[in-house]
Amino acid sequence: MSMVEILNTHDFMELALQEAEAAGKRGEVPIGAVLTSSVGKILARSGNRVEEYADPTAHAEMLVLREVARQRNEPRLPDCDLYVTLEPCAMCAGAISLARLRRVYFAAYDPKGGAVEHGARYFGQPTCHHKPEVISGIEEQRAGYLLKNFFNEKR
Amino acid sequence: MSMVEILNTHDFMELALQEAEAAGKRGEVPIGAVLTSSVGKILARSGNRVEEYADPTAHAEMLVLREVARQRNEPRLPDCDLYVTLEPCAMCAGAISLARLRRVYFAAYDPKGGAVEHGARYFGQPTCHHKPEVISGIEEQRAGYLLKNFFNEKR
Repeated sequence: MSMVEILNTHDFMELALQEAEAAGKRGEVPIGAVLTSSVGKILARSGNRVEEYADPTAHAEMLVLREVARQRNEPRLPDCDLYVTLEPCAMCAGAISLARLRRVYFAAYDPKGGAVEHGARYFGQPTCHHKPEVISGIEEQRAGYLLKNFFNEKR
Repeated sequence: MSMVEILNTHDFMELALQEAEAAGKRGEVPIGAVLTSSVGKILARSGNRVEEYADPTAHAEMLVLREVARQRNEPRLPDCDLYVTLEPCAMCAGAISLARLRRVYFAAYDPKGGAVEHGARYFGQPTCHHKPEVISGIEEQRAGYLLKNFFNEKR
């Protein structure tokens, strides 16, 4: 993709999937994320780095949030949109809310550990003080396939 | 306290309260945390540093978890206990579970934003794969007083 091309939702999720794939090759759970501005500029991209950084909080979502907040010297990012290949867990849903993101696009659903459409359903809790718009199921099959392959190989 | 003194739950919470107070003086929400080993060695202590680090995830709990994981080069800390002055939010409850902490002691309850005894009640969700032992209400009044003062002064 050249710099002048206009990127859409599927292009951003494609980049997140590339990050997921690269994470899997590093021995991480293959999840990737991209953070964009409201006008579609890519601000950060990363895969999971829990093992690499020896950091239990180093999920892809957390890493892109933290990177952009640091770049801007501003912990609140209300103009930003997150693209992530798996439904966020409770930690990441909490961080997304604290960072006041505008929108979250995610690919695969995570009935076992997700906290958006499953489990805690955090954005629907009265204790959640900022609820982003959520768009789910984009490139769901590809993201799920990556994860399934990873866990099958681990067994 | 000298190094040879045997510290108990209230001593650790006292240190967490000192961190909370110091955080308040830096303009952060006054919450503090201490992480100890199972034999009561203090491994890390911190207050909130969201504004200082421009990091929406820099809650006291997250900072001590991340510090000890980095020290040990190991993202899982199953022998560790957390002392924190306020009921953890969804993000921190998620991180506590991912880090597989043994125990969480917290002081004040947080009906507005807590995710342990309120809201998501994350550790009770079937999507939570590690549930620490939780001991709550230790030094509750002092921790609550610090927070109340802080928010009253902001108004």
